[in-house]
Amino acid sequence: MAEVDYHPMWESLGMDVEAHDGLLAAVGQMFQDSFLVQENRPASTDYLDSVVANIHSGRIQEMLDQKEAGTATKIVGSFCLYVPEEVIMAARGISVGLCSGADWATDKVEKHIPHNTCPLIKSFNGFKLGRVCPYIESSDLVVGENTCDGKKKAYEFFGTQKPMHIMDVPNVKTDTALASYREQVRLLAQRVEQETGVKITEEGLRAAIRLVNEKRRALQRLSATRAADPAPISGLDCLLTVQAAFMDDPVRLTAAINAMADECERRVRDGVGVAPKGTKRVLYTGTPMPVPFWKLFTLIEQAGAVVVGEECCTGSRYYKDLVDESGETVDEMLDRIAERYYDINCAIFTPNEGRMKDVIGMAKNLHADGIVDCSLQFCTLYDMESFTMRKAAEEAGIPYMHISTDYSNEDTGQLTTRIQAFIEMI
Amino acid sequence: MAEVDYHPMWESLGMDVEAHDGLLAAVGQMFQDSFLVQENRPASTDYLDSVVANIHSGRIQEMLDQKEAGTATKIVGSFCLYVPEEVIMAARGISVGLCSGADWATDKVEKHIPHNTCPLIKSFNGFKLGRVCPYIESSDLVVGENTCDGKKKAYEFFGTQKPMHIMDVPNVKTDTALASYREQVRLLAQRVEQETGVKITEEGLRAAIRLVNEKRRALQRLSATRAADPAPISGLDCLLTVQAAFMDDPVRLTAAINAMADECERRVRDGVGVAPKGTKRVLYTGTPMPVPFWKLFTLIEQAGAVVVGEECCTGSRYYKDLVDESGETVDEMLDRIAERYYDINCAIFTPNEGRMKDVIGMAKNLHADGIVDCSLQFCTLYDMESFTMRKAAEEAGIPYMHISTDYSNEDTGQLTTRIQAFIEMI
Repeated sequence: MAEVDYHPMWESLGMDVEAHDGLLAAVGQMFQDSFLVQENRPASTDYLDSVVANIHSGRIQEMLDQKEAGTATKIVGSFCLYVPEEVIMAARGISVGLCSGADWATDKVEKHIPHNTCPLIKSFNGFKLGRVCPYIESSDLVVGENTCDGKKKAYEFFGTQKPMHIMDVPNVKTDTALASYREQVRLLAQRVEQETGVKITEEGLRAAIRLVNEKRRALQRLSATRAADPAPISGLDCLLTVQAAFMDDPVRLTAAINAMADECERRVRDGVGVAPKGTKRVLYTGTPMPVPFWKLFTLIEQAGAVVVGEECCTGSRYYKDLVDESGETVDEMLDRIAERYYDINCAIFTPNEGRMKDVIGMAKNLHADGIVDCSLQFCTLYDMESFTMRKAAEEAGIPYMHISTDYSNEDTGQLTTRIQAFIEMI
Repeated sequence: MAEVDYHPMWESLGMDVEAHDGLLAAVGQMFQDSFLVQENRPASTDYLDSVVANIHSGRIQEMLDQKEAGTATKIVGSFCLYVPEEVIMAARGISVGLCSGADWATDKVEKHIPHNTCPLIKSFNGFKLGRVCPYIESSDLVVGENTCDGKKKAYEFFGTQKPMHIMDVPNVKTDTALASYREQVRLLAQRVEQETGVKITEEGLRAAIRLVNEKRRALQRLSATRAADPAPISGLDCLLTVQAAFMDDPVRLTAAINAMADECERRVRDGVGVAPKGTKRVLYTGTPMPVPFWKLFTLIEQAGAVVVGEECCTGSRYYKDLVDESGETVDEMLDRIAERYYDINCAIFTPNEGRMKDVIGMAKNLHADGIVDCSLQFCTLYDMESFTMRKAAEEAGIPYMHISTDYSNEDTGQLTTRIQAFIEMI
């Protein structure tokens, strides 16, 4: 794979190949410093290394080849868990999560978006304006969602750069709101049908539901092994596994995750860990962590703790609930999909007590010694909810720390000090 | 009036009377420095002075007396134009806008709400925690609304301090969203009926619709006079008129606004202005300006310009559209109310092109030389939308300035410099 020159492919996508070479080199170095320095990784995490090696190259070529061969119809990008990948896959579309985990082309971004905007939102606009994300460039359609104030308004600008479909996501959990979200899932299905020219059938949708559920079951198996002490696998590798789930081929990745779960189950039986028994255990909760935002997990684990769970969109929210497979008609299946996604406890909802229950439950099940709750800077929703989260942790008697950070490395020193103090205390 | 000692009333409301004395003195000084120093005010603005003199005293006593006498049922507070006052008044409730225009008890607030929160949201929580707002303390029910991320999450905390009803407001203008808002207006009506014990009747609702429409018509008349050069009345006095509309008795205030409109119409005929003919004319657009946030208008008008219109919630959005009076049944009238309020072009909506049209239309009708667009600090929605607003102004060939500010006076010097430069340029 490493022999192939992907520059012609990137050029054909209209990318800024020179800038992109710089980005890839930087991400490679970050991957080295965060992942490859880890000791006692399960051997099966090799697969994750190959995902990262191919993330902007082989995987993109594979998707383009599938479109060329007609085994896939269109590439549909998105930024959020409320966009159900099953619907895209049912029309033989490829569902991908778009780049939003690093600062890029900030000068250009701030001509369209305020300086005081969360780094994730600035990032995806920067990747687009800087033309360095092959997922954005190869997407035939981008599906946005009205979730937070920042994203919903930023999509008004992003929509001038790419063909978009916007899903309107409710803020409350009521029957009316669920009905409205069900309608939104139907409207997405219609748009995907239009875009792909493929009618979504019972067979196609059922297969997609099963396929994604299989991926979730594999992630659940892997996650369950992390309750053991010593933890068989690092938080970094588990975070990367879910990050990969937004980009990689689902069948191949599911097999790889099951192989990782097999190995981790053996490790648990054998008492083998990625860190010594008795290592302090941290549950992460908060804003999502898109590739290559590995900073916080790296700081926590290099400070001598191990992350044993992630209550976030790049964690348990992605895999903890399956879509009910009992739907028979397309309508029934779309409803089951809508219900499953609507159950996600994002901070956009008010109230959002379900998240507090999820976090405390995970902390207990995974025997976490403390909770690290992180909001990306200027994320009003998670910042606001951190007060409720702290209260819930205090009531449960679990040490809690809130962190506000961004994609830069400017606060690394300060964060390290705070994290070390927290780990010593728990 | 000035002879009456209101301390026993404030004490009976559970207020911190000592701190409140300090607040009233500060607001009195601000009123002096912003309003009473103005030259050539219309004589009929006397009424506004009496509104401010009685704002925390005589008006509160009047509301409590009306409840005592049974002419009013309950006092219902709110923070947003999407809460229809007609519904409250139809049950003989008194609808009031709650205090949110000054920093207060910030230390206490930041135990529950992030530092990086817009000043308006911090303010209403501070007024509550500091017990210095007689409107909050006398309210039997507070109606919140899921509009921006900050407010919807802050209400989770505020709801631990006061009995609350939350309206869920849509983010998009679609048939489904309008249906959902219609339902929300019905749910508000049910809650108001429960709270007041009064069944909302056709007669009651029709009378409330007409009463509020009369207030709007009076404000429309006053607003129309400001198209003249010289402008007959200052932006400060017009802002205060709308601020008063959230707190004062509606019948009495409507008569006073009509008297102001009469005088301003005479002034226009006679060529009399609050500032000389040829004074630079500014249209304001942006976040709302609750009492006593008079800073920006004071800076603009003391820098030698005159504000001739306000496209905001404490401005034209409050009065530009009437509720259609043709509804016959309660259901029809509630639908007409919902439709009227749903038409408001707040930045919570995406897209929100209607606001751009409103602003450009007002700038042309009122012969504005420039547009000042202001976002309260950390207001993602208006900050985001300022980019679209700037573009619309540029396309219309109207000079535009964006300001981000808060309730402090720390940026007064810097703002004065920027505003003076803008006025010289337009």
